[in-house]
Amino acid sequence: MENLKKKIEALAGIKSDLSDKDFLLTWEKSESDLNMILGVAEVLIGLRQKNISPKVFESGLAISNFRDNSTRTRFSFASACNLLGLAVQDLDKEKSQIAHGETVRETASMISFLSDFIGIRDDIFLGEGNKYMREVGAALDEGFENGVLPVRPGIVNLQCDMDHPTQSLADLMHLKEKYGSLEALQGKKIVMSWAYSPSYGKPLSVPQGIIALLSRFGMNIELAYPEGYELLPGIVSLAGKNSIESGGSFTISNSMEESMKDADIVYPKSWAPFHIMQLRTQLLKDGDKSGLKDLEELCLSNNAKFTDWEYNERIMRHTKNGNALYMHCLPADISGVSCKKGEVSSSTFEKYRLITYREAGFKPYIIAAMMFTNKFANPSETLRKIMERDRRRIIF
Amino acid sequence: MENLKKKIEALAGIKSDLSDKDFLLTWEKSESDLNMILGVAEVLIGLRQKNISPKVFESGLAISNFRDNSTRTRFSFASACNLLGLAVQDLDKEKSQIAHGETVRETASMISFLSDFIGIRDDIFLGEGNKYMREVGAALDEGFENGVLPVRPGIVNLQCDMDHPTQSLADLMHLKEKYGSLEALQGKKIVMSWAYSPSYGKPLSVPQGIIALLSRFGMNIELAYPEGYELLPGIVSLAGKNSIESGGSFTISNSMEESMKDADIVYPKSWAPFHIMQLRTQLLKDGDKSGLKDLEELCLSNNAKFTDWEYNERIMRHTKNGNALYMHCLPADISGVSCKKGEVSSSTFEKYRLITYREAGFKPYIIAAMMFTNKFANPSETLRKIMERDRRRIIF
Amino acid sequence: MENLKKKIEALAGIKSDLSDKDFLLTWEKSESDLNMILGVAEVLIGLRQKNISPKVFESGLAISNFRDNSTRTRFSFASACNLLGLAVQDLDKEKSQIAHGETVRETASMISFLSDFIGIRDDIFLGEGNKYMREVGAALDEGFENGVLPVRPGIVNLQCDMDHPTQSLADLMHLKEKYGSLEALQGKKIVMSWAYSPSYGKPLSVPQGIIALLSRFGMNIELAYPEGYELLPGIVSLAGKNSIESGGSFTISNSMEESMKDADIVYPKSWAPFHIMQLRTQLLKDGDKSGLKDLEELCLSNNAKFTDWEYNERIMRHTKNGNALYMHCLPADISGVSCKKGEVSSSTFEKYRLITYREAGFKPYIIAAMMFTNKFANPSETLRKIMERDRRRIIF
Repeated sequence: MENLKKKIEALAGIKSDLSDKDFLLTWEKSESDLNMILGVAEVLIGLRQKNISPKVFESGLAISNFRDNSTRTRFSFASACNLLGLAVQDLDKEKSQIAHGETVRETASMISFLSDFIGIRDDIFLGEGNKYMREVGAALDEGFENGVLPVRPGIVNLQCDMDHPTQSLADLMHLKEKYGSLEALQGKKIVMSWAYSPSYGKPLSVPQGIIALLSRFGMNIELAYPEGYELLPGIVSLAGKNSIESGGSFTISNSMEESMKDADIVYPKSWAPFHIMQLRTQLLKDGDKSGLKDLEELCLSNNAKFTDWEYNERIMRHTKNGNALYMHCLPADISGVSCKKGEVSSSTFEKYRLITYREAGFKPYIIAAMMFTNKFANPSETLRKIMERDRRRIIF
Repeated sequence: MENLKKKIEALAGIKSDLSDKDFLLTWEKSESDLNMILGVAEVLIGLRQKNISPKVFESGLAISNFRDNSTRTRFSFASACNLLGLAVQDLDKEKSQIAHGETVRETASMISFLSDFIGIRDDIFLGEGNKYMREVGAALDEGFENGVLPVRPGIVNLQCDMDHPTQSLADLMHLKEKYGSLEALQGKKIVMSWAYSPSYGKPLSVPQGIIALLSRFGMNIELAYPEGYELLPGIVSLAGKNSIESGGSFTISNSMEESMKDADIVYPKSWAPFHIMQLRTQLLKDGDKSGLKDLEELCLSNNAKFTDWEYNERIMRHTKNGNALYMHCLPADISGVSCKKGEVSSSTFEKYRLITYREAGFKPYIIAAMMFTNKFANPSETLRKIMERDRRRIIF
Repeated sequence: MENLKKKIEALAGIKSDLSDKDFLLTWEKSESDLNMILGVAEVLIGLRQKNISPKVFESGLAISNFRDNSTRTRFSFASACNLLGLAVQDLDKEKSQIAHGETVRETASMISFLSDFIGIRDDIFLGEGNKYMREVGAALDEGFENGVLPVRPGIVNLQCDMDHPTQSLADLMHLKEKYGSLEALQGKKIVMSWAYSPSYGKPLSVPQGIIALLSRFGMNIELAYPEGYELLPGIVSLAGKNSIESGGSFTISNSMEESMKDADIVYPKSWAPFHIMQLRTQLLKDGDKSGLKDLEELCLSNNAKFTDWEYNERIMRHTKNGNALYMHCLPADISGVSCKKGEVSSSTFEKYRLITYREAGFKPYIIAAMMFTNKFANPSETLRKIMERDRRRIIF
């Protein structure tokens, strides 16, 4: 309990600027902001362990707007909302029709009269997801400024075409726990590697989010992929710039095996090339079904050239002490388990399976911390009051 | 805060009879009842603004039974329930099969063992929606009287084939706010006008609800539609009778343009002719798919004769000072935005867009007031206790 | 109120072993366990009647994982969770893809980081449902033991291929209320009878659950079905063994009419033969669509030979005083109402309709009692604290 109090006090020293701001991209947030999110998330975990309820809302709605299927993130969002006292109301494709322009503007207002947060997942179309979130945000601003909305609901990016901040921050929290501090990440080598998958159209947001975030903590980042599987150039150059500023390094490799040399951490995960995703967005907009079919076939046959980009014990041998920390956002495509040949061999995955589960377990608290810091300008003070109130989550 | 207390005290003077009664049609309620609903809704808005939680249920379920798609009303209902402390459980087409007779009777009981309210939207089939709600109500009565149900859940009509009371009362509240009082509506001219839409089968409940409700407050109502687009005759004659009793007037016009002369308020909205809706119900019951297809084609081509029934700046010029208040239940069919040619021109809609959003914002509070007055026989007294308790919605 | 206090005190004398244990099959629980469940459920009903909230969770999630459609059980689960203070999060087919092996293991963890209970319904495939629940349970154990999950969520079987414990215990509670005590069931004759239905593939879990449970209370059980409509042999022999131990009897009959002689209670309900269900599972696994179609036809034509297995006034005459208590888990296939010819005649059903509704009304409380006893090792003590706290459900 003393430990928890000290953590809360320490947060008072962090000058963050998260209050009343949407959380859309990690690179729009300062290191202090990120530190605050991680710190609040740690305290929330500690409170839960001690059966102290951090309920800060007597009532209120949080809207989950998933424009793509999801289990992990949906449950993380629901858990975070419930922890703080908010009820979740789904706004999904089956239940409504969302589009652009007036429809977005209007729907954003209609769902927000008594809402405190909107969590949005929109990761399918390159160039669309993050734009959509900002369109919603602008509509909420307008509604709030004109007296339509009593409060301006905060937006949490639950994955877009550019970034997956709740994932990358959960991953960062995982690394912070493993190595003891963010400072300890300085000089650690992480390989964000493409890996083979028999599926097509996997989003870019996880690798982009990882390189853009971890490059800020002095890590040596190696981005590995077969030629042609580029990420969005703007985000790659941002990662490079970050690395220089943070005293780390950023390199690109076209060999999974070579990239792994002396790696402390590896993150082997499939994605689609950004130019393919751009093409796909255009074909979808044009409603060109045969074009889309051709593109899918082309992609799958292209992927099939790189089935050797499987993370396995042979490749792992090259990492530091043959024992790098394996990370994944889950679900992984596991060879012989979820597919014939996939991102990772089953024996390698099995070795790290529970650790990847643990990694995922940080996400609900990251989301809760994002909402908490949006709503309370002085998180340390509010957490202190929660400690003092000492309300039990399981009441008896 | 003093203002809020005075409002609560004033409610003590209203003799309403809403307790333990379903809210199915505004014309089954007295003016005192409607006054009470509006008054309670205003207080709930005031409490929210002052961050005082009006939570009156420690736990309890409210069931949303939507037999048609909806975003606005679904979220309004969810918001209202959450505000009072109830969790929403959906009973939708995907999740169950509802029909008539024994199935309705049984399902009504099965979902109600621990429920306090059932919100029903059933607006598609003329002659069916309101009947269905009463069938559910009778089943709940029987269950309660025979000890099957511990309480008799209240029913809230979230739109049926005859009325849309949560919409029309939100609209009334909007007018009350705009003009300062219900008394100020006396002598104001409102045009409830049909407007062109490229879609077919739009429900009649909004225009019917509007003319039946506003005719009780001494307004001069002009109902405008192209020949053939009649509303249910019983409701039209009710509106006429109301107007006489309240000192207003009720006229029917077959010209949008002429009807607009000196209008204070306009409500241009598309609907389908009632005899078409009756025919459609019969064809649906008969499962006559080709008959339905023929009917749709006939309707759309009929609609197409009246594309000039678009509310726009040319038409608006005829209204009082060329500046009548524009109302809509949303979403509007906006020319050049949501369709090529629709109910309203984009420039005219844009002028009133935020005002229509504001209009929609009253709906959650109207629904909450309906539930509140159903459950608490002395709303003024209960609201006073809520003020005294002074529990914050955002706790810290 | 004194009566309620006495009931709570009496529970202190029951030595149950329910804490931290999943509720998967009634025959894995001792009579003391079942007594405790029934006792806690009775107290929860009493608290509700006296408007005392038994909320024991300030926040927390309960997951509903329905792998089959359901209204009754879904609402019962939602009601139970809400009563105790938990929010329900659905994990359904539309929202995720669940399968076996790694997918089950992973999903079980991903949804459980902040969850307290998982309610599972998986009754379609013989040999699969209960196995799936245990697979989920093993994954939760592993996650909890390895620090992935902060608590081990409890699993409630909301119907599987073998048992339907929330139904059979609600039925038992219904009988206890009717006859005054469980002891009074000794020597009462109940007929669990197959009945005709024009549908195919109805689960076996209800008749199996009924004979396995009621045979423990000294009842004279007659299981009646047309030749070929056998239940799972293991459960039938368990019921026989139970009957011997409890001083009752267990017989099988192939005539509905003869079986009814002197019956105190009858439970006429359709089901599919277990060997057909086994065959069906295999065909489904093989993806053999034409085989499945053939099997369905065979079954329906087989069923059609036994349309005289309808419970009606002619058959009822054979029961004790021509007036046996009629039970059903609902919905019943009622001749001339829900189908041309079904399980029960409409006049007979109508006579007992409200009693079957009442029977169903115990289910939410049984589920709540299962969760309550899982979470609180000393239910009597916790219920006493709830009484002392005296928090009202409807607050004002």
